[in-house]
Amino acid sequence: MAAGESKFGKLEGRYAREIFADAVDEAFEGSPKVDRRDIQALFVGQMSDYYEHQGHSGPIFAEWAGLENVPAFRLEGACASSGLALAAAIMAIGSGRFETVMVGGVEKMTHRSTADVTEILSTASDFPTEQWNGLTFPGAFALIANAHMDRYGTTEEQLARVAVKNHRCGALNPKAHMAKEVTLEQALSSRMIAYPLKLFDCSLISDGAAALILTSPEAAKKYTDTPVHIVGSGQASDTIGLWEREDLTGFLASRLAARRAYEMAGLKPRDIDVAEVHDCFTIAEIVAYEDLRLCGKGEGGRLIDEGATEIHGRIPVNTSGGLKSKGHPVGATGAGQVYEMYRQLLGEAGRMQVEGAETALCHNLGGSGATCAVHILRRGD
Amino acid sequence: MAAGESKFGKLEGRYAREIFADAVDEAFEGSPKVDRRDIQALFVGQMSDYYEHQGHSGPIFAEWAGLENVPAFRLEGACASSGLALAAAIMAIGSGRFETVMVGGVEKMTHRSTADVTEILSTASDFPTEQWNGLTFPGAFALIANAHMDRYGTTEEQLARVAVKNHRCGALNPKAHMAKEVTLEQALSSRMIAYPLKLFDCSLISDGAAALILTSPEAAKKYTDTPVHIVGSGQASDTIGLWEREDLTGFLASRLAARRAYEMAGLKPRDIDVAEVHDCFTIAEIVAYEDLRLCGKGEGGRLIDEGATEIHGRIPVNTSGGLKSKGHPVGATGAGQVYEMYRQLLGEAGRMQVEGAETALCHNLGGSGATCAVHILRRGD
Repeated sequence: MAAGESKFGKLEGRYAREIFADAVDEAFEGSPKVDRRDIQALFVGQMSDYYEHQGHSGPIFAEWAGLENVPAFRLEGACASSGLALAAAIMAIGSGRFETVMVGGVEKMTHRSTADVTEILSTASDFPTEQWNGLTFPGAFALIANAHMDRYGTTEEQLARVAVKNHRCGALNPKAHMAKEVTLEQALSSRMIAYPLKLFDCSLISDGAAALILTSPEAAKKYTDTPVHIVGSGQASDTIGLWEREDLTGFLASRLAARRAYEMAGLKPRDIDVAEVHDCFTIAEIVAYEDLRLCGKGEGGRLIDEGATEIHGRIPVNTSGGLKSKGHPVGATGAGQVYEMYRQLLGEAGRMQVEGAETALCHNLGGSGATCAVHILRRGD
Repeated sequence: MAAGESKFGKLEGRYAREIFADAVDEAFEGSPKVDRRDIQALFVGQMSDYYEHQGHSGPIFAEWAGLENVPAFRLEGACASSGLALAAAIMAIGSGRFETVMVGGVEKMTHRSTADVTEILSTASDFPTEQWNGLTFPGAFALIANAHMDRYGTTEEQLARVAVKNHRCGALNPKAHMAKEVTLEQALSSRMIAYPLKLFDCSLISDGAAALILTSPEAAKKYTDTPVHIVGSGQASDTIGLWEREDLTGFLASRLAARRAYEMAGLKPRDIDVAEVHDCFTIAEIVAYEDLRLCGKGEGGRLIDEGATEIHGRIPVNTSGGLKSKGHPVGATGAGQVYEMYRQLLGEAGRMQVEGAETALCHNLGGSGATCAVHILRRGD
């Protein structure tokens, strides 16, 4: 595996395809033995045609990656689009059809107004039962936060602590969109969006792209002496409408995807050294701790209070800054998580480095949890 | 393999998910030994979120198919979306991750105005070089038709004969949207859309869905005594912008996808007994004859003149009526082609039946040819 990523942020005057090309260039620069002609197919995640009035983007991204006439698969699973692309690519290599492929993720969002983006994002929720009734994502995750607070006593301060932690990490990440620290007081006093979620409980609207080069374990030996292996890939779906779910305090799709990934890897939650989880809202990170079994059910708030998920904690989470501080160009997010964990496992994460990290997990959620993809990476010997 | 399909047409007052459920029901009814719980994943093609302001449709279609919490992959490749879904599903089974999966294709279009649909379809062409300059798909295929007429002497009458043939077939298809014959005179005198393409040179705006059940060759023995095998799967991409292509008289992506599919199947064009090709416009069928090597380059017009592609001709094409008469719910089209060929190979194609058909080909094109997926099916022993 090799990986590249564009800057995340407000990248004005550039098309998604141009931003993707940045990520592709870094991926090839980091793996000089891989030639563009070695790449036999592209699997790319992108959420919405609305941003650039542009669908059919697989061939566009293939062309801008310099991959001539390769099969180009675009996958869409809302904010988990590139998590799905990665899952499909792993199976494509596993089938023997292709030896080396590229996985991409891209979104260009910031040229649209916040109102437009909110509406476009809402297409990832259910039209008849959610969009039609005016529910947007801050509202959906506010429902989840309220349910979690009600049942487990999770507090607004605990939510704010997630933001503080992730901004502390993001301030160390040269690719991050909002690379600055925030204080607990700033987070708690920020503007209310949907109770109990305030401005600093919400992730960012960003532009960005990531690109991964995947090959079979055998072929990896040709290309590198320091391979990173994807040892677990799990995915699940759930009802899109929140109203149909028995429980709003967690995501069944996350739990099932995690179980499938752990089983495939033959690993347990305690084997994970570092993780990127899908903190589209701060409550989503607390729920992810529980769904990924990094702590027990209802104990997510305590985990953040204890500092266990800080860079130097017991199980560092979102060392990149996460969606909250690094940014959330939705289609790019899943592949971007893998980029970050790849660099951690190679010991190249700079000031974000978790010492001795050998096993990493990436958790990519779509919408309000109707899709989840979990991947587990290990440093090769 | 098993297959189901909804009626194609104007299905008023129904969501895409409801139409998909019709197709799924037929697939299960036709394969009574397959339980819904046997289906381990869904790969579904859908073109655009714009039609129903609904993205993230993988989990929706999984739920409406009665597939609980399965991994749900939505693929988008414009009008070739479900061709891509099929290609990805074949690799997923080949990897051993899943034994039995469902492939779907869906689109709901007719609730939108023709102007809206034309604009939504245009998202499958290039924004900066095509959409921005006002080029829509009839215009793009008119450029291709003019180039073909100029170089090979193809005539407006030959284009019209494609429409006449496909409507003659579609009139025999109970699922077809416009199941009626048209005369050569009607086709030639229909309203000009973009020279030389007239109304009857254009495919239909339709609602519809198709669902396929795919399993490994070994597992197929549990479920059926009359399996249909997918023996070839080829795919390719090309530049999205027509301006970048050296030649407008054919589609490089089609030629490459066909070559890859023939090679995988170990078959040659002369081995094909019946084919469904992507006749989004009549010129596209003539070009497909050539790209699939059913005839030589420039000879597509002669093939239609000779009647070779009629139901009782040498190489019957679009016995279902094709996109022209059966209809073109874009995301459903690729899977719908496979449905038709599956029924041909089982000898269940009714009045459309091609006697003794053992090998069939499906050609699914995205946009103006930036994506192509070709699949070859064979009747099992």
